[in-house]
Parts: sequence; C-alpha cells; structure tokens
Amino acid sequence: MREEQNGKSSVSSDFIVVKALENGVSVIGLTRGQETRFAHSEKLDAGEVWIAQFTEFTSAMKIRGRARVLTAHGDLDSGKGEDEES
Amino acid sequence: MREEQNGKSSVSSDFIVVKALENGVSVIGLTRGQETRFAHSEKLDAGEVWIAQFTEFTSAMKIRGRARVLTAHGDLDSGKGEDEES
Amino acid sequence: MREEQNGKSSVSSDFIVVKALENGVSVIGLTRGQETRFAHSEKLDAGEVWIAQFTEFTSAMKIRGRARVLTAHGDLDSGKGEDEES
Amino acid sequence: MREEQNGKSSVSSDFIVVKALENGVSVIGLTRGQETRFAHSEKLDAGEVWIAQFTEFTSAMKIRGRARVLTAHGDLDSGKGEDEES
Amino acid sequence: MREEQNGKSSVSSDFIVVKALENGVSVIGLTRGQETRFAHSEKLDAGEVWIAQFTEFTSAMKIRGRARVLTAHGDLDSGKGEDEES
Amino acid sequence: MREEQNGKSSVSSDFIVVKALENGVSVIGLTRGQETRFAHSEKLDAGEVWIAQFTEFTSAMKIRGRARVLTAHGDLDSGKGEDEES
Amino acid sequence: MREEQNGKSSVSSDFIVVKALENGVSVIGLTRGQETRFAHSEKLDAGEVWIAQFTEFTSAMKIRGRARVLTAHGDLDSGKGEDEES
Amino acid sequence: MREEQNGKSSVSSDFIVVKALENGVSVIGLTRGQETRFAHSEKLDAGEVWIAQFTEFTSAMKIRGRARVLTAHGDLDSGKGEDEES
Amino acid sequence: MREEQNGKSSVSSDFIVVKALENGVSVIGLTRGQETRFAHSEKLDAGEVWIAQFTEFTSAMKIRGRARVLTAHGDLDSGKGEDEES
Amino acid sequence: MREEQNGKSSVSSDFIVVKALENGVSVIGLTRGQETRFAHSEKLDAGEVWIAQFTEFTSAMKIRGRARVLTAHGDLDSGKGEDEES
Amino acid sequence: MREEQNGKSSVSSDFIVVKALENGVSVIGLTRGQETRFAHSEKLDAGEVWIAQFTEFTSAMKIRGRARVLTAHGDLDSGKGEDEES
Amino acid sequence: MREEQNGKSSVSSDFIVVKALENGVSVIGLTRGQETRFAHSEKLDAGEVWIAQFTEFTSAMKIRGRARVLTAHGDLDSGKGEDEES
Repeated sequence: MREEQNGKSSVSSDFIVVKALENGVSVIGLTRGQETRFAHSEKLDAGEVWIAQFTEFTSAMKIRGRARVLTAHGDLDSGKGEDEES
Repeated sequence: MREEQNGKSSVSSDFIVVKALENGVSVIGLTRGQETRFAHSEKLDAGEVWIAQFTEFTSAMKIRGRARVLTAHGDLDSGKGEDEES
Repeated sequence: MREEQNGKSSVSSDFIVVKALENGVSVIGLTRGQETRFAHSEKLDAGEVWIAQFTEFTSAMKIRGRARVLTAHGDLDSGKGEDEES
Repeated sequence: MREEQNGKSSVSSDFIVVKALENGVSVIGLTRGQETRFAHSEKLDAGEVWIAQFTEFTSAMKIRGRARVLTAHGDLDSGKGEDEES
Repeated sequence: MREEQNGKSSVSSDFIVVKALENGVSVIGLTRGQETRFAHSEKLDAGEVWIAQFTEFTSAMKIRGRARVLTAHGDLDSGKGEDEES
Repeated sequence: MREEQNGKSSVSSDFIVVKALENGVSVIGLTRGQETRFAHSEKLDAGEVWIAQFTEFTSAMKIRGRARVLTAHGDLDSGKGEDEES
Repeated sequence: MREEQNGKSSVSSDFIVVKALENGVSVIGLTRGQETRFAHSEKLDAGEVWIAQFTEFTSAMKIRGRARVLTAHGDLDSGKGEDEES
Repeated sequence: MREEQNGKSSVSSDFIVVKALENGVSVIGLTRGQETRFAHSEKLDAGEVWIAQFTEFTSAMKIRGRARVLTAHGDLDSGKGEDEES
Repeated sequence: MREEQNGKSSVSSDFIVVKALENGVSVIGLTRGQETRFAHSEKLDAGEVWIAQFTEFTSAMKIRGRARVLTAHGDLDSGKGEDEES
Repeated sequence: MREEQNGKSSVSSDFIVVKALENGVSVIGLTRGQETRFAHSEKLDAGEVWIAQFTEFTSAMKIRGRARVLTAHGDLDSGKGEDEES
Repeated sequence: MREEQNGKSSVSSDFIVVKALENGVSVIGLTRGQETRFAHSEKLDAGEVWIAQFTEFTSAMKIRGRARVLTAHGDLDSGKGEDEES
Repeated sequence: MREEQNGKSSVSSDFIVVKALENGVSVIGLTRGQETRFAHSEKLDAGEVWIAQFTEFTSAMKIRGRARVLTAHGDLDSGKGEDEES
C-alpha cells in the first residue's frame, strides 16, 4: 500500500533519455536518501533507448558505455570519444 | 476502487511518442517503485505510432528496434544506424 | 456517480490530433493503471480527424494506418512511408 | 443540481475551432469515462464555424467531411485532399 | 442565489470575438453538460462585433453567416468564401 | 452585502478597449448565467474610449457602430468597412 | 471595516495610464456589479497623467477628450483624430 | 494593529517610476474604495525620482507637471509637449 | 515578535538599485499605510550603490541628487540633466 | 528555535553578486523592519566575490568602493568612474 | 519510514550532469544542514556520465578531475585546462 | 529530527557554480539569520568545481582566489584580473 501512495508524488518529475551507441551500455539508478547505493541496473544493446524519471527511490543515475544522453540541461554523449585523453 | 483514485493524479503527466520504423519494435513500460521490473510490453509493426504517459505505475520505458522517438527533451531514432559501431 | 467525480480532474489534460490519410486507420485507447489493455478502438476513414485527451481511463494510445499526428511534442505521420524499410 | 456543480470545473478547459468547407460536415463529441460513445453530433453547412471545449462529458471529438480545424497543437484540414490516396 | 455563486468561477474563462461581415450573422451558444442544446442565439448585423466567454452554461458556440472570428488558437472567417466548393 | 462579496472574485478578469469612430456607438453588456439579456448599454460619441472587464454579471458584449476594438486575442474595427458587402 | 478587507484583494489588479492631450479630459470610473453607474469622474488638464487600477468598486472606465491611453492590450488615442469622420 | 496586517498583502503589488523634469511636479495618490479622494500629494523638484506602489490605500495616481513616467504598460512624459495643442 | 512575523511575507518583494553619481544623494523610504511619511533617509556619496526592497513598512521611495536607477520597469538617471529645463 | 523557523521562508529570495575591484570594498546589510540600521558589514579585498540573498533580517544593502554588481534588474559598477563628477 | 516521507519532497529538485573526461573523476555530495560534510563520493572512469539531483540530504557537490559539467546556469569543464595557471 | 524537517523546504532553492582557476580558492558559506558568521569554508584546488545551494543555514557566500563563477544573474571571474587596480 505504501508503494501506491509514494508513487503519486513523482509522476511529473523530470526524466532523461539514453540511446545506447554500442552493446552493453548500462544505466544505473542510485537510491535517494542518506545512502546512495545501486538500486537498478539496466543493460542496453546498441540502438536501444531508455527513458527514465527521477523517482521517490532514485535521485541519481550513472551511464557506462557509449550512448547519446538527452536531458533538460542539454545533450551529450557518454563513452570515450575524441575529447578524452585516457 | 484503488485504481480509480490513483489514476487521478497522473492524467497530466508527461508522455512520449514512438513511431516504429520496422516490424517488431517493442516499447516496454517498467514499474515505478523500489523494484524496476517489466510491467507492459507493446509490440509495434512498421509505421505504427505509440503515445504513452508516465503513470503512477510506470516511471521508465525501453524501446527496442528502429523507431522515431519524440520527447519533451528532443527527438532521436532508436535502433542501429549510421552513428553506431557494434 | 463515480464517473462524474472522476471526470472532473481530467478536463484539462493534454490531447492529440489524428487525421486519417487512408481508410481503416485505428486509434486505440489503452487503460491507465496496473494493466494496459484495450479500452476503446476508433476506426477512421480517409480524411476524418480524431481529437482525444488523455483521461483518467486512458494513458496510452496506438495508431495504426497512414495518418497525420499532432502532439505537444511535435508532429509526425504514422503508417509506412519513405523512411521505413520493412 | 449535479449538472451545475460539474460544469464549474471545466469552464477553462481547452477548445477547438472547426470551419466547415462543404455542407454536411459533422463534429461528434464522445463521452469521457470508461465507455467512449457518441454524446452529441453537430451538423455544419459550408462556411459555418463550430467552437467547442472539452468538458466533463466530452473528452474526444471526431470530424467528418471537409473542414479547417484549429487547435492548440496546430491546424489542419479534415476531409480528403491532395495528400490522401484512398 | 445559485446563479450568483455559479458565475464566480467563470469570470476568467476564455472568450471569442466575432465581427459580422453581412447582415443576419448568428452566434449560437450551446449548453454545457450532458445535453448540448441551443441556449442563446444572437443576431448580428453587418459590422457588429460580439465578444463572448465560455461560461458555466455555455461550452460550445456556432457561427452562421460571413464573419471574422478571433480566438486564442488563431483567426478565421466564417461563411462561404474562395476556399469552399459547395 | 452580496454585491461586495461577489465583486472580489472578478477584479482581475480580462477586459476590452473600445474607441468610438463615430457618434452613437453602443457597447452593450449581456448577463452571465442561464439567460443572456441586456444588462447595460453605453453610448459613446466619436473619440470616446470605453474600457470594460468581464464581471460576475457580464460575460458577453456587443458593439454597434464604427469603433476600434482592442482585445487579448487581437484588434479589429467594428462597423461597416471596406471588407463588408451588405 | 468592510472597506479595509475588500481592498486587499484588488491591490494587484490591472491598471490603465491616461495622458490628457487637451484641457478638460475626463476619466470616469463606473461601478462593478449589477448596475453600471458613474462612481468617480476625474478631470485632467492638458499634460496631466492619470493611472488607475480596476478595483472592487470599478470594472469599467470611460475617457472623454483627447488623450493617450496605455493598456495591457495596447495603446490608442482617445478624442477625434484623423481616422474619425463625424 | 490593523495597519500591520493590511500591509502584508500589498508588498508585491505593481509600482510606477516618476522623474520630475521641472520644479513643482506633483504625484498624487488617491484612495482605493468607494470614494476616490486625495490621500497623499508628493511635490518633486526637477530631477527628483519618485517610485511608488499601488497599496491597500491607493489605487490611482495623478501626475501634474513635466515628468518622465515608467510603468509596466510602457513609458510616457507628463506635462505639455510637442503633441499637445491647448 | 511582531517584527519577525511581518518580515516573512516581504522577503521576495521587488527592489530597486541606486548608484550615486555625486556626493549627497539621498534615497528616502516612505511608509506604507494610510499616512505616507518619511521612514528612512539614506545618504550616498558618489559611487556608492544602494539596493532596497519594498517592505511591509515601505511602499514608496524618493531619490534626490544625481544617480543611476535600475528598476523592473526600466532604468533612468535622477538629478538634473540635459533633458531638464528648470 | 525562532531562527530556524524564520529561515525557512527566505531560502528562495533574490540575491546579488558583488565583485570587489579594489581592496576595502564593503557590502553592508541593513535591517528589514521599522528601523533600517546596519546589521552586517562585509569587507572585500580586490577580486573577492560576495553573493548574498535578501533575508528575513536584511531588506537593503549598501556597497562602498569599486565593485562589479550583478542583480536581477541589470549590472553596474559601484565606485567613482568616468560618469561621475564629484 | 522517515526516508520514504522525506524523499517525496525532493523528486522535482534540480540536477547536474557530469561526464568524466579522464579516469578517476570524483563527484562528491555534501550534506545539507548545519554541518557540510562528505556524504557520498562517486568515482567515474573516462566517458562515464553521472546525473544527480540536489536532495534532502545533499545541497552541495564537488567535482575533481577533468569533466564536462551541465547545469541550469550553464556549462563548464572541470579540471586543469588552458585557462588555468597553477 | 529538526534537521530533516528543515531540509525539506530548501531542496529547490537557487545555487551557484564555482570553478577554481588556481590552487587554494575558498568558497565560504555564511549563516542565515540575525548574525552573519562563517559556517563552512571549502578549499578548492585548480580545476575543481563546487556547486552549492542557498540553504536554510546559508544565505551568503564569499569567494576568494581566481575562479569562474556561474549564477542565475550572470557569470564573472573572481580574483585579480585585468580590470582591477590594487
């Protein structure tokens, strides 16, 4: 019953869009609250698109691998590219 | 009765538009809450358009296959294309 | 009596516009809530226009056949066209 | 008495504008709620203009025949035209 | 007493502007609620301007005859003109 | 006492501006509510300007004679002019 | 005591600006409510500027004589000018 | 004690800016409420700037003499100038 | 205790910026309420900047001497300049 | 305990940015309320930046010395410069 | 139980986007409240993207190492670059 | 327990972004309330980025040393530069 009530307040929160540009991209949701730990890890194959809101349970996300990322503050590509050195 | 009350708060939440560019595109809704699991999977044939809101039960979506995707943060194509390598 | 009370909260929700570009276009409304199932299927002949809001009972829509679709996030055509392969 | 109370909440909902471009255009209002059935059908002669809000009782509209349609998401013409094939 | 209380909630609703371009233009208000029937019919002579809000009692309007119509979604002319065929 | 309480809710409603371009222009306020009847008729001489809000008691206005009209949805001239035929 | 309480709700209502372009311009405030009668008449000499809000007691204004008028819906000059005929 | 409570609701109301362009400019505040009478008269010498909000006690202002006036609806100069005739 | 409670409601009210362009500029705050009397007078030397909000206690300000004034409705210079005559 | 409760209401109030362009710039906060007296004086050395909100306790600020000042109504430099005479 | 209730109020707070441009970038969250201490440190390898909201527990963040940072107030690169001297 | 309740109201307050352009930059948070005293001092090495909100406990910040500063009212560089004299 708690889950239903909690969900109500976050249906209009912001979201991001991630398109994998290679196989094995992961989008990891991390917990909201005093501890920031892994809550969900989504594996994407090349070409797959993942759209996810911040929720009552997720206040941070981490993206590994080559992907196109659209957000309210602009777009960028994750993964190593021409502007990285390592 | 719970379902009716819950539905009220999400009628004005954001939505995405997906147009399948090949047969067999799937748009998968994932559950809001502490667990992120598959809630609904919609199969689209080429040319079909799917428009879906975030709801009290869905806070993430995954798109597989070639499709055009319109969102509040911009548009992109899912599926492998000229900018993928794998 | 429930129906009257529910209806109040969704009169200002968002809507889409669909113009059929051939006979037999269908616009299908799918249920809001834990299950996503067909709620209403509207058949459109060529030239007919369908304008529908998200409601307390409908949080997703599916469009089959050639049609022009206007939404708050942009416009596109459903149905097979020059940019599809299948 | 119910009707008066209901009406209050929808006076500021969105509306569409329809101008008939031939005789016999119909604009059909469909019911809000679990069932989507015909609620009102308005016949327009060529040149007549119809302006209608979404209301507590109407969440979808269907336009048959040649008409100019203005909405918050853009304008289009209903009826068969140069871009239809059937 | 009911009339005074009802009126309060609609003083800031949207309105349209109609200028008759010939004698005998009519602007008809139709009732809000489960039934859509004629509530008021205003006859305009050429050059007269009619400005009317949606109200608790009126959720649709119909314009017959040649007139210029200004709305929040754009302007158009009612009446038969160069783009009609009938 | 009723009048004072009613007035409160409409002080920020929309208004129109009318400038008479000839003697004898009339701006007529019509009643809000189930009946639409004449509530007030203002006679303007050439050059006079009339600025009036929608109120709890007035939801429609009619302008007769040559005048310039400014509204939130644009401006136009009432009265017979070059674009009328009658 | 009533006056103090009433005044609170209108301090942020809209206003107009009137600059007299000749002696003897009058700006007349008319009563809000079921009757529209003269409430206040302000005489302006050439060059004087009058700035007045709509209030709980005033929902219409009339301007006589040559003046420049600034409003939220645009500006115009009252008084007879080049575009009048009478 | 009344004065303190009243003041709270008007701290964010609109204001005007007046710069005197000659000695002896007056900016007169007039009372809000059923009577419109002089409440305060401020004398400005050339070059002085006066910035004043509408308040619970003032709903109209009158400016006499040559001055530059800035408002939310635009700027103008009070006092006789090139565009006056008297 | 009253002062603390009052202060809360005005922390987000509008403000002005004044830069003295000569020694001895004064910015005078005048009382909100039925009487408009001097509440505070700030003396500025050339180059000093004064930034002040409207508050529960101040609804008008007067600037004497040469200064640059920035407001939400535009900027101007106080003090005698090229556009004054006296 | 009072201090904690008061602070809540001002966390989203407006702020200014001050960059000292010489040693010994001071930014002085003055008290909100019936008396306007010095509450805090901050000394800045050349190059230091000071960012401060209006708070429940501060409704005015004074800047002495050469500095760059950014505000919601525009930017200016404090201190004597080319446009001062004294 | 406290954690669930707290989380509700921050689901729509602002967020930043960080893309690591080298291995070993850290994004450190610091505690909201009277003490500002390390709450969470996230290590990013080159190409990884980190998206994090301000939450009830985090009101400041620190970024070490070469990274691209997108915020509501603009974008910049962390890490030593052409515009640093040390 | 107080800290949790307080934190809720400030999660959406404004923030600044500071990038150190040399070693030893400090960003100092100062207390909200009747006294303005040092609450937190953060040391940044060249290239490090610090992003901090105004909170219930911090209403002012001071930046020492060469840094790039992004705010809602514009951007500037702290530290001595070409436009300083001392």
